[in-house]
Amino acid sequence: MEPYRLTATQAVSQIQAGTLTVSAYVTSLLSRIEQRDEAVQAWAYLDRELVLRRARELDVIPPGERGPLYGVVVGVKDVIYTKDMPTQHNSPIYKDDAPALDAGCVAILRSSGALILRKTTTTEFAATITSPATRNPHDPARTLGGSMIRPASFNGVYALKPTWGAISPEGLKVYSLTLDTLGLYARSAADLELLGASGNSEAKGVSGMRFAVLKNPRAAFPDPGLGSQHAITKAVALLREHGATVDEIDNDTVWPDFDQMPTWHRTVMTTDGRVALDEQLAGQVENKGGFTHKARLAALDGIAALQPRVDQVLQGYEALLTPSVPDEAPVGFENTGSAAFNSVWRALHVPVVNVPGFQGEDGLPVGVSLVAPRYRDRHLVRVRAAVGEIFEAQGGWRPKNHIHD
Amino acid sequence: MEPYRLTATQAVSQIQAGTLTVSAYVTSLLSRIEQRDEAVQAWAYLDRELVLRRARELDVIPPGERGPLYGVVVGVKDVIYTKDMPTQHNSPIYKDDAPALDAGCVAILRSSGALILRKTTTTEFAATITSPATRNPHDPARTLGGSMIRPASFNGVYALKPTWGAISPEGLKVYSLTLDTLGLYARSAADLELLGASGNSEAKGVSGMRFAVLKNPRAAFPDPGLGSQHAITKAVALLREHGATVDEIDNDTVWPDFDQMPTWHRTVMTTDGRVALDEQLAGQVENKGGFTHKARLAALDGIAALQPRVDQVLQGYEALLTPSVPDEAPVGFENTGSAAFNSVWRALHVPVVNVPGFQGEDGLPVGVSLVAPRYRDRHLVRVRAAVGEIFEAQGGWRPKNHIHD
Repeated sequence: MEPYRLTATQAVSQIQAGTLTVSAYVTSLLSRIEQRDEAVQAWAYLDRELVLRRARELDVIPPGERGPLYGVVVGVKDVIYTKDMPTQHNSPIYKDDAPALDAGCVAILRSSGALILRKTTTTEFAATITSPATRNPHDPARTLGGSMIRPASFNGVYALKPTWGAISPEGLKVYSLTLDTLGLYARSAADLELLGASGNSEAKGVSGMRFAVLKNPRAAFPDPGLGSQHAITKAVALLREHGATVDEIDNDTVWPDFDQMPTWHRTVMTTDGRVALDEQLAGQVENKGGFTHKARLAALDGIAALQPRVDQVLQGYEALLTPSVPDEAPVGFENTGSAAFNSVWRALHVPVVNVPGFQGEDGLPVGVSLVAPRYRDRHLVRVRAAVGEIFEAQGGWRPKNHIHD
Repeated sequence: MEPYRLTATQAVSQIQAGTLTVSAYVTSLLSRIEQRDEAVQAWAYLDRELVLRRARELDVIPPGERGPLYGVVVGVKDVIYTKDMPTQHNSPIYKDDAPALDAGCVAILRSSGALILRKTTTTEFAATITSPATRNPHDPARTLGGSMIRPASFNGVYALKPTWGAISPEGLKVYSLTLDTLGLYARSAADLELLGASGNSEAKGVSGMRFAVLKNPRAAFPDPGLGSQHAITKAVALLREHGATVDEIDNDTVWPDFDQMPTWHRTVMTTDGRVALDEQLAGQVENKGGFTHKARLAALDGIAALQPRVDQVLQGYEALLTPSVPDEAPVGFENTGSAAFNSVWRALHVPVVNVPGFQGEDGLPVGVSLVAPRYRDRHLVRVRAAVGEIFEAQGGWRPKNHIHD
């Protein structure tokens, strides 16, 4: 198999065994990028010479001195500072801006032996829904999506949006102080575990596990498409088939304020963004929504009061199942698709994973989200390994490791 | 008067009138720094040539194109990125580190016409209590203090710690995501208004205003010294003398959880710091305090639940009076003095101002804090103008514009 087709876990294993060098791995990745770059346009910055030099530097490190992420190759979204590459936020203001600074997460990756391959595209400041030129690799007529769970669903890959604050946002361009969350994409559940340091987990099936779905999701999650309805129905059926219990949480009764979450999220995001971006994104700065400090505090306090009550209910389950997106990646590039199904969990600060495995009417991937209480990230990664095995095998859409020819 | 003795408001006024140039102002400041630098040691970085060049650049801007902060000269704490000066965090890790990056607040200052004079010293990452070499300008045997309200009290200057999030922390080295707050120091109440854009406020006295003090502050604010007890007693007496009402808030009854704030603050700060600094500050990383995720969430949720209830009670008053520090600046440099009186308000995210005017047994300055509900920052600055006039005139210690010969 061409090295570029390997998951990170597989590549690391070959590098450890001495059958693959970091340079050979990177060379293969670069050749694949060259083949696909014109169609996908995923890179905001890529310096081939720099990357090959870093690979050679890693190759000469003696085995005993290699870090825990030695041989892992990572792309970094272009709103996160990297000291050897420009950081441009997809904004004309920061064109060719190259502060010699590594974000905290990048510094940790480097010191653990990972190689930073390139900067990936972003919407402007990761804050608008205006899409960069990037195409969906499964269908060049469609959007790739915007941030974390949504693009993971659109592209059929794994993603972990951890508990808010679990990964330091130091060195990330701040948009919303209370909502911004750094997360991870990976080709496989094992790759996420590798990066998330969750320890190896053997997937032991879901028999006896208890899951939940929301009884009345409509107000907080409006307009689900056929793709997501089908995915949730099938996911629930598969879990039951494999011996798990799936209960309904009567959110209208236990969390009567849950339906306010979309409004509260929008209020907090807009008012946070106004402080962060000042005069940069005019519409939000000019406060077109008319959000007052009073509305902001009501939103912040409302969310804060709901957080522990959501945690408490979710403690009773392995995970809550919820749609990752309304449907498949939409056709066109005017926007990166609806984030309506993600904002509630983001504001609640709970960890979310996207599990691929299902598909929409056009045969494109649709994922399902698993949600757990705050700081149950590692637990969630373990549950996903068990769930993911079933969804991948029987969901109907087989993840193709993000690669189409 | 030598230009270095002017408040920022006075200097701006002379520059606007054409009787002072930015270059002449800066030259005077630099000569004063040269005189005092050996004794005070306040600068982490100062490049005289750079500053004079910037001053000349400002001088040639035509009057019609000058920003709202034209002629204001600012020092920036060395945990905030400045693109033309190194940012070293008082840490050997970042020695001579000069990422070409302006923090959001610095970018706004520059684009408004302010001149960044130099970087001021900090404790390591602004996170430890280990003091830099800096001396208290009023007594070289004493500490300058650490952060915001406390050093303002120790040095007899004005300070505003705004509502959390009111100034974007973008470009500030993150220590605690939920507690870090950027603030302002100034020589006079008018200077704070200038920087805080609160609009001009005429101090119209305090007659008819309603203030509050805590009835049982001991558990949350242990071990007040004679200096702070005297300051509060005198502050209350002066306000009543001038026609204001000062009530007691029975915090044991209205906020029975208030006494947990020091513990909650410590828990959040320690667990936030563990994420931010990773392996940099070993003691906190190693989790010597043994804080669990459960303890962290209890603290976060406890604070979040208390915030709106504190706001609600404080809405009934112009401001709450509370000690800024236990006492005068302590002798010695092992630490920067107790922050016990500040952490509760920091965690509650409420705005706090230090008003100088009182003194301790050794004749050194002791300030009093005014506290208002979240986002009542501008109101607080206006109240302070009225209160500050009285405290400055009759409190017993006269602010000497931060300058001793």
